Amino acid sequence: MIVSLLAAFSVITVIVSAKVVPKDSEECRILLGDAFIEEIAGYSEVRDNILNYVLVGDFKTKTYDELAKFVDKFGARPSGTDTLEQSIDYMIQLTRDEGIDDITTEELEVPQWTRGQEEVTMLEPRVKNIAVLGLGRSVSTPPEGVTAEVVVVNSFAQLDTFSDNDIEGKIVLYDPVFTSYGETVTYRTQGATKAAAKGAVASLVRSIAPFSINSPHTGSQNYGENVTKIPTAAITLEDADLIRRFYNRGEKVVLNIKMFSTYDTKISRNTLIDYKGTENPEKLVIVSGHIDSWDVGQGAMDDGGGLFISWAVPVILKRLNLKPKRTIRSIFWTAEELGLVGAYAYEEKHRDENHNINFIMESDEGTFAPLGLAVAGNKEARCIVAEVLKLFKSINASTLVEDDSPGSDIAVIIKTGVPGASLHNDNGKYFWFHHTEGDMMNVEDEHELDLGTAFWTAVAYIIADISADIPR
Amino acid sequence: MIVSLLAAFSVITVIVSAKVVPKDSEECRILLGDAFIEEIAGYSEVRDNILNYVLVGDFKTKTYDELAKFVDKFGARPSGTDTLEQSIDYMIQLTRDEGIDDITTEELEVPQWTRGQEEVTMLEPRVKNIAVLGLGRSVSTPPEGVTAEVVVVNSFAQLDTFSDNDIEGKIVLYDPVFTSYGETVTYRTQGATKAAAKGAVASLVRSIAPFSINSPHTGSQNYGENVTKIPTAAITLEDADLIRRFYNRGEKVVLNIKMFSTYDTKISRNTLIDYKGTENPEKLVIVSGHIDSWDVGQGAMDDGGGLFISWAVPVILKRLNLKPKRTIRSIFWTAEELGLVGAYAYEEKHRDENHNINFIMESDEGTFAPLGLAVAGNKEARCIVAEVLKLFKSINASTLVEDDSPGSDIAVIIKTGVPGASLHNDNGKYFWFHHTEGDMMNVEDEHELDLGTAFWTAVAYIIADISADIPR
Repeated sequence: MIVSLLAAFSVITVIVSAKVVPKDSEECRILLGDAFIEEIAGYSEVRDNILNYVLVGDFKTKTYDELAKFVDKFGARPSGTDTLEQSIDYMIQLTRDEGIDDITTEELEVPQWTRGQEEVTMLEPRVKNIAVLGLGRSVSTPPEGVTAEVVVVNSFAQLDTFSDNDIEGKIVLYDPVFTSYGETVTYRTQGATKAAAKGAVASLVRSIAPFSINSPHTGSQNYGENVTKIPTAAITLEDADLIRRFYNRGEKVVLNIKMFSTYDTKISRNTLIDYKGTENPEKLVIVSGHIDSWDVGQGAMDDGGGLFISWAVPVILKRLNLKPKRTIRSIFWTAEELGLVGAYAYEEKHRDENHNINFIMESDEGTFAPLGLAVAGNKEARCIVAEVLKLFKSINASTLVEDDSPGSDIAVIIKTGVPGASLHNDNGKYFWFHHTEGDMMNVEDEHELDLGTAFWTAVAYIIADISADIPR
Repeated sequence: MIVSLLAAFSVITVIVSAKVVPKDSEECRILLGDAFIEEIAGYSEVRDNILNYVLVGDFKTKTYDELAKFVDKFGARPSGTDTLEQSIDYMIQLTRDEGIDDITTEELEVPQWTRGQEEVTMLEPRVKNIAVLGLGRSVSTPPEGVTAEVVVVNSFAQLDTFSDNDIEGKIVLYDPVFTSYGETVTYRTQGATKAAAKGAVASLVRSIAPFSINSPHTGSQNYGENVTKIPTAAITLEDADLIRRFYNRGEKVVLNIKMFSTYDTKISRNTLIDYKGTENPEKLVIVSGHIDSWDVGQGAMDDGGGLFISWAVPVILKRLNLKPKRTIRSIFWTAEELGLVGAYAYEEKHRDENHNINFIMESDEGTFAPLGLAVAGNKEARCIVAEVLKLFKSINASTLVEDDSPGSDIAVIIKTGVPGASLHNDNGKYFWFHHTEGDMMNVEDEHELDLGTAFWTAVAYIIADISADIPR
């Protein structure tokens, strides 16, 4: 996932938001009425049917196996590449092989930022190679690189204590303490702009992560208006600490930064797979993940897992001949990592039908063991979802956390008033691997993926089938 | 640390060996006698003196701060390099600055294996860069590299199921399940030899580690007699799994391996710092760590921590004016990583005085929170150490584990019958960072290092001062 200005704070929100507690349950009972609550509880048979099929039946380990084949075959799938387009074709064929043909692709223009050679060398106080990953959309350095002294700051406030003269011609290293991703990532997304405004020739950021084995983490950043675009990159926690220790001891640190990249735009596609509703086919319950990834690792976790549990929903329902009243649409978003580009295009293109989106779901914060949902919506909407989640106590996935901007892509739709949810999962180590070469299949677990698939499918089915719409 | 044939199994031993339990305590009481046990218990004041000085007094965070300055200044210190020799000079000066002048260096010939460019590229089934670290003493490939198909095995037994024809001209990838370091490392140390014996043109090994963020782990290996020396390297857990998945699906995997290195010998030095005993200066209690490191990371954990807690022992005793009866010798071993070269030279040079070594200690398996000691020696020797360890209950460092081959360097001396011990510490994550670029100061913790320093110093002092020698 990326974090846009819009969706930036979902991780924090999850942490601070409250679970639905017994008091709320009573409120929900009054709001929903006993009959409706009983109706929802009546989906226990369907739930068992789906859980059994995925956890012990024919679909067991299918999500993991298909995801592994997919990410092994294509590897990283950055926005704008042929690889991404081929991977979209592959997913379409994989779906057709299941006898599902109601597949639409919608073209849109996407950015293509292509990483070239990247090399950071500490020249003083001693020569050392510094592991590095340039940030998305970063400009290149001149061929000989940028050589300059480093100023280390731990916050924008500390940067502001320096005069422009102090920063002019320097490299700024942001070395913030990692609190939460949502809070700390601002040094990655806005660091270059703020450093450039004070005359810096380049900026570096301590990777936005709580743990490292000398692992740099890439990610998006955006240049502000009216400032010089300076080269910008992430270095590892270890090297950031090393440079800070030198700096704090009063030793001058000089780096040479060489970074080369190209920028272009290409055509890519959002992919929509419809599993048509029997009574209200115009009404949509959307499940989704993004198919593009960063250019490091395999994008197995970000967001291969979310992609595949969403792919599995119509596949499993068709195999089990379960036909909900509303249509379930599985969307594979494109170009999420460089700014939710696919989601914005979808929102614009489908604005007229916005009222038909009953509920929208995305998994883009890991597919570790599911714990429940992070839900946006009014009180009644959350009450309905809470009742649905009660059906998943046996797999420990009954937690509802309130989150006004869940997901990444879907936040674009949710801000228009559509209720929705992202997968709430046991993702404490998500940011250890996020946007690194370590985002490979090893992060995924067969059984946890099965749990995610079963949960995602059953929840989507129930919401698409119950007698009442999710209210706005 | 490395693991030689000699010292290979200390990690396993620690895991399977038993703590000294109450039954043993009674046995010890009979062996040692109440008077001697009371004498040892009487060192509680000295213990408090040392613990206070390090944990809350003037030495607080000194170990961490000095270690950080040292590893930041020199970085990696591979055997045979000028950097290693300069780092030895630095440690001597740091000791002299404390007013300690009884310092001897002993020259010896050490190997210098210098890593050059290393690059592994998967060519089939798709092009992918494979992160790699060549293994110590590996020969180079031809300039164009070695290009061959991969055969994946998880054990030597599985390799043996292939005919020489199957392996001839291939690259063997060892992909063993990590059980313990001592058990699994054999695929790193002997893999090339066994693959070459069957006609392989190169061998790769899954990094000897239980966890990874796409981190390759280097380490030593030795070519056997009478087989072709083939290039050999470690790849990451993630890439090993990727290649195995392709292989298991029946897809042909072709790699190009380019590795270049040089091999030479140089002169290096063991460093001996003597803090003279008042009554039996000829008798030695040795504390030690190795000063050389691998060429990746900073060697902060392997073995900067062990080096500095051993450096601290005479320094603290001098500062506190504590004078034990026997001499405490702090040794900084050289060239441990390429085969305990410094230790073997010391053992040979000092063989005549072997009988004077009362007890020998090394810390080379991490300086995380100390838990006690892993002790080699006869029953009575272990009983004495167990009584000493009872003094460290307040810092949770009273555990004695029986280990017939503790430490790395000191195993060379211990096998001659000298009793000794290595630091038993909370090192569950040691092999996450071991021999990687991640072996930097971030692995170390100020307070845990203080605990290690205080424990190491007090234990050494007490053993050097008690009325009885440690029996053989």
